[in-house]
Amino acid sequence: MVVMMKEDATEAQVAKVMFKIEALGTKAHLSRGTVNTFVGVVGAANGVETGILESLEGVERVISVPGPVMLASRNFRQENTVFSIDGSKIGEKKIVVIAGPCAVESREQLIQAALEVKKGGAVALRGGAFKPRTSPYSFQGLGEEGLKILAEARDMAGLAVVTEVVAPEQVPLVSQYADVLQVGARNMQNYALLNAVGTSHKPVLLKRALSSTIDEFLNAAEYILSHNNPRVILCERGIRTFETCTRNTVDINAIPVLKSMTHLPVIVDPSHGTGKREYVAAVSRAAIAAGADGLMVEVHPDPDHAMSDGDQSLYPQEFQDLMEQLRPVAEAVGRTL
Amino acid sequence: MVVMMKEDATEAQVAKVMFKIEALGTKAHLSRGTVNTFVGVVGAANGVETGILESLEGVERVISVPGPVMLASRNFRQENTVFSIDGSKIGEKKIVVIAGPCAVESREQLIQAALEVKKGGAVALRGGAFKPRTSPYSFQGLGEEGLKILAEARDMAGLAVVTEVVAPEQVPLVSQYADVLQVGARNMQNYALLNAVGTSHKPVLLKRALSSTIDEFLNAAEYILSHNNPRVILCERGIRTFETCTRNTVDINAIPVLKSMTHLPVIVDPSHGTGKREYVAAVSRAAIAAGADGLMVEVHPDPDHAMSDGDQSLYPQEFQDLMEQLRPVAEAVGRTL
Amino acid sequence: MVVMMKEDATEAQVAKVMFKIEALGTKAHLSRGTVNTFVGVVGAANGVETGILESLEGVERVISVPGPVMLASRNFRQENTVFSIDGSKIGEKKIVVIAGPCAVESREQLIQAALEVKKGGAVALRGGAFKPRTSPYSFQGLGEEGLKILAEARDMAGLAVVTEVVAPEQVPLVSQYADVLQVGARNMQNYALLNAVGTSHKPVLLKRALSSTIDEFLNAAEYILSHNNPRVILCERGIRTFETCTRNTVDINAIPVLKSMTHLPVIVDPSHGTGKREYVAAVSRAAIAAGADGLMVEVHPDPDHAMSDGDQSLYPQEFQDLMEQLRPVAEAVGRTL
Amino acid sequence: MVVMMKEDATEAQVAKVMFKIEALGTKAHLSRGTVNTFVGVVGAANGVETGILESLEGVERVISVPGPVMLASRNFRQENTVFSIDGSKIGEKKIVVIAGPCAVESREQLIQAALEVKKGGAVALRGGAFKPRTSPYSFQGLGEEGLKILAEARDMAGLAVVTEVVAPEQVPLVSQYADVLQVGARNMQNYALLNAVGTSHKPVLLKRALSSTIDEFLNAAEYILSHNNPRVILCERGIRTFETCTRNTVDINAIPVLKSMTHLPVIVDPSHGTGKREYVAAVSRAAIAAGADGLMVEVHPDPDHAMSDGDQSLYPQEFQDLMEQLRPVAEAVGRTL
Repeated sequence: MVVMMKEDATEAQVAKVMFKIEALGTKAHLSRGTVNTFVGVVGAANGVETGILESLEGVERVISVPGPVMLASRNFRQENTVFSIDGSKIGEKKIVVIAGPCAVESREQLIQAALEVKKGGAVALRGGAFKPRTSPYSFQGLGEEGLKILAEARDMAGLAVVTEVVAPEQVPLVSQYADVLQVGARNMQNYALLNAVGTSHKPVLLKRALSSTIDEFLNAAEYILSHNNPRVILCERGIRTFETCTRNTVDINAIPVLKSMTHLPVIVDPSHGTGKREYVAAVSRAAIAAGADGLMVEVHPDPDHAMSDGDQSLYPQEFQDLMEQLRPVAEAVGRTL
Repeated sequence: MVVMMKEDATEAQVAKVMFKIEALGTKAHLSRGTVNTFVGVVGAANGVETGILESLEGVERVISVPGPVMLASRNFRQENTVFSIDGSKIGEKKIVVIAGPCAVESREQLIQAALEVKKGGAVALRGGAFKPRTSPYSFQGLGEEGLKILAEARDMAGLAVVTEVVAPEQVPLVSQYADVLQVGARNMQNYALLNAVGTSHKPVLLKRALSSTIDEFLNAAEYILSHNNPRVILCERGIRTFETCTRNTVDINAIPVLKSMTHLPVIVDPSHGTGKREYVAAVSRAAIAAGADGLMVEVHPDPDHAMSDGDQSLYPQEFQDLMEQLRPVAEAVGRTL
Repeated sequence: MVVMMKEDATEAQVAKVMFKIEALGTKAHLSRGTVNTFVGVVGAANGVETGILESLEGVERVISVPGPVMLASRNFRQENTVFSIDGSKIGEKKIVVIAGPCAVESREQLIQAALEVKKGGAVALRGGAFKPRTSPYSFQGLGEEGLKILAEARDMAGLAVVTEVVAPEQVPLVSQYADVLQVGARNMQNYALLNAVGTSHKPVLLKRALSSTIDEFLNAAEYILSHNNPRVILCERGIRTFETCTRNTVDINAIPVLKSMTHLPVIVDPSHGTGKREYVAAVSRAAIAAGADGLMVEVHPDPDHAMSDGDQSLYPQEFQDLMEQLRPVAEAVGRTL
Repeated sequence: MVVMMKEDATEAQVAKVMFKIEALGTKAHLSRGTVNTFVGVVGAANGVETGILESLEGVERVISVPGPVMLASRNFRQENTVFSIDGSKIGEKKIVVIAGPCAVESREQLIQAALEVKKGGAVALRGGAFKPRTSPYSFQGLGEEGLKILAEARDMAGLAVVTEVVAPEQVPLVSQYADVLQVGARNMQNYALLNAVGTSHKPVLLKRALSSTIDEFLNAAEYILSHNNPRVILCERGIRTFETCTRNTVDINAIPVLKSMTHLPVIVDPSHGTGKREYVAAVSRAAIAAGADGLMVEVHPDPDHAMSDGDQSLYPQEFQDLMEQLRPVAEAVGRTL
């Protein structure tokens, strides 16, 4: 249930609505749109009668939001959520490209990658300092040293930094260096971690788990939003199917479904989504044509010697070519790159 | 194994190569490209030594084709297969749109649908006269009466007719009325039916089964090709996953994978692929951006009263709007509509 | 909707109920239990008022059967369907084991297999004469010659014969030789074939398709039943998942689900279900413990040289050992072997 | 790579082998069997020559262990791992049953549940104090208060306590009250949590994730083992498929596959695995017949008013009946209950 305030509602009227909601035993959640202010009734709102809230001064109308997803729902907020990542807006007409290697391997590798992806037109650099790996014996990332290299590359190339956080207690450390905290697919339902990034003041890039439904994905976002962190980017990165020609299967349907169900920005990771560099360009074009707000692409200065995900990483020149290919597709759907 | 003949190879040289292949206990399959002629060694070619064939006159070289898919493989034929459906080429620069209702319900319904999709720019009309349905008590189509209505609509609107055939013994009947024989997803591994359409002289539109791998899909096409019917259109129509927001999940990865593995034209059915009309446009744009050669879209003059698949059928005006949206996307990837 | 007649209802009363049902625009289906007679109202029965039928003489009560599955439903028939396969009852206390090679390869191979599986306690011999294969270049079976060998083995070993039919026009031929017609997983929704086996007078063993839901599986059975062939055996043979350690994943849940939803006998094929001989015994034990009415097991006199499915075929001695292992499990759940 | 020491190898010889392994840049891992001692070469052992280790005194032979799973592999340790949970051995002939409600809801509810499951023959009590829930607005458990109730129920009923831990920082707190730490399906690849339970001194019950492969499951166990915590119980609890009649699909194949690949005990959760109480008994019988070492069953004193998972919780009497049913099945496969 969401209370939509009138355009000219006063702060006192908003406060009174919030007070009333709390008095009814539910929780109030404030959200300011560009025109109207909305107050969400969070939690089990079954007992709350619409009439009680509608009769309060300054209330335009009360909107019913079915299902458990509340703050993430398009019913709660009709306008797209737009926010800035180190100066670049996401969720608007311009498509945002995040690019870089799977893992930070060395200062040289990362800085080279950063300069290359900047040249291609990326606005943010990806690179893992803490790597969740299937085997305990695989390379797990450079840790804080990797974060420092990311920060250096950011300054040198003029790119925002997106990097993964894998445990609640790491959130403060990673937040010192990163512009966006990434929650990986394996951790999509690690609620302790979702709560921790929810209470941080950083934008969060949330990846869909390998076999999660769209409903579970939005509920995971809801965990973050419910801690008053409204800046969540949803990332479709391929689901697990029985197909073996590709590493995962990009759920292209999920883009229009998510765009209709939620106001949050939606991006696609075609690198994990396909697992093979030769298919990245086609799936990137498809993602933009389907309405994605951005892409997250793996680019490595030397994919043949990458410590992880080499098969799905683009060569720098391929990334420049990809960006050239994407421009007309973006324009064809009324976007820019 | 494929024998590539020299550009100036004589008919006698080709015949000698074919004779040699048969003498070795395998089967020869002739395929004429625009420049070179190819002779495929079909069947268990393990025992055949490359050298024996390479030493024959007129032979340019012998190409190894790994795996059981042979005639459908891009290794066997590098150029795209292009053929005509009632005058419209498929597999070339121009994207082919097939549209119409799920089922032929009546003369009025179908003719109205035909005129509407023609107006929007479709080159072929879809519509089922024989409908495979999950329940034996559901509407199973008008049968031959439906075929006659399709033929009438074709003449009236100037569209090719694509319609499903569900049993081997129906192939001659359906071939009298249809320009393209459709094999549905449920029959993708109905080998008796594949053999029957393979020996017909009609182009075949083969739909991928709900849980088939790309390899199985190509092997199903191989059944048709191995009967000397080279005109096969592959149709990705969504795979079954655990997602419930959409009826199926369009495997967008499959488009670049198929385009790299096979020379056959590849189209997408966004209607079955999503199951919901509101997502058809986004997925259609994605399909074209990813490199599809065409689309197969459900359009019904009155979706709210459709006998089947009403939820996924576009209203006629939506189809016109879709075609307008698709034009710039096609151009963005160097295609036309 | 099912009309349950009183125990002492006369034939005339039954006929009158059937007449009334047809007069209402629906179809009547007669089914005689050991105590009561039932008349099913087949087709769209929404418009039929219960009261009209309940008021007829001889009617005990009218039972509502939700969903499209009707004749296969446990609501339609409470007692287990029991029928005889060449003298052996299926659907009763005794568990039925069908065993033999994937394909009939030669007279020697099949007769040896038949004698071995008879020795172990199988009541029926499996073996394909018509083999549906993914690739058109794989061995497709010996055809009618294979059927003749099967018939010879039956006589020699005293076993019923279960063999696959892959096309509607083959049904009369295969029926000459087989005691049970098998419809394979790939043909579960080949409705032309289901209709053809439905009009035959042979028991049918219907395999669940790789990605079919239980609901679709029962609807496929309904096609056969609706042609007045009530003798259908349902066979769970593994569904397709992302797991790669096994060929398929046996859906063990499906056994109790099917036993509660339908009165038809349910068996399990642990050979296709696992794809590896070393797991066949464990999954066979599980199937019986879960309530399966039988098993279908691949046994080959020389698995290492089998033309198909060698990895999942038991050695004859392994089959004897398996039967020994199964006996106490069957007894533990109140069954015999 | 694993070094198997001779039966009479001295401590000094073992130490020398370990020293050599570390000197080669890899890590040594000691494991004492009842007869032989084994030293694992953990990490990238590619460069290590077998001969160097085989020539050391006291070495019987060097065993190659393919793949990244090392300490969890049956190649590393041939004998079953057996350990005690508060006095009851798991991994031996006797099948271990863990039972109780999904969540600790109140003192009354839990103590009643504990007494009931004890009466039925369970050796451990399950119950969540920290509940990972899809929606942030669902009941998330009683927290530490729930742990205290669990401890009280343990003392009162004489049962071990198995309870979930959802964040690394909770491990010390939960360890104060629990006999076994449970890692839930959603956290199977939460590596920070796996590391934390690996460094605890408690047995760990690790649930397989909804779409994890068996290989990923074993790698998750490897994380725990690699921290020198060898007491890991693997729990198959159903994978996600497209089937909708059941909540998940129990992968019964996984039991023999796991028993052949690893020495760790394997149990099954038929409650989450089916999601419906009426199917729990059949799947429990199947699990034991397939070779499971135990079961984890949801039992609630009043399922109709459970705060979570009521549909899949057994009534107390059903649990007693289940145990009665399981006894002969256990005996049929040479086990006891």
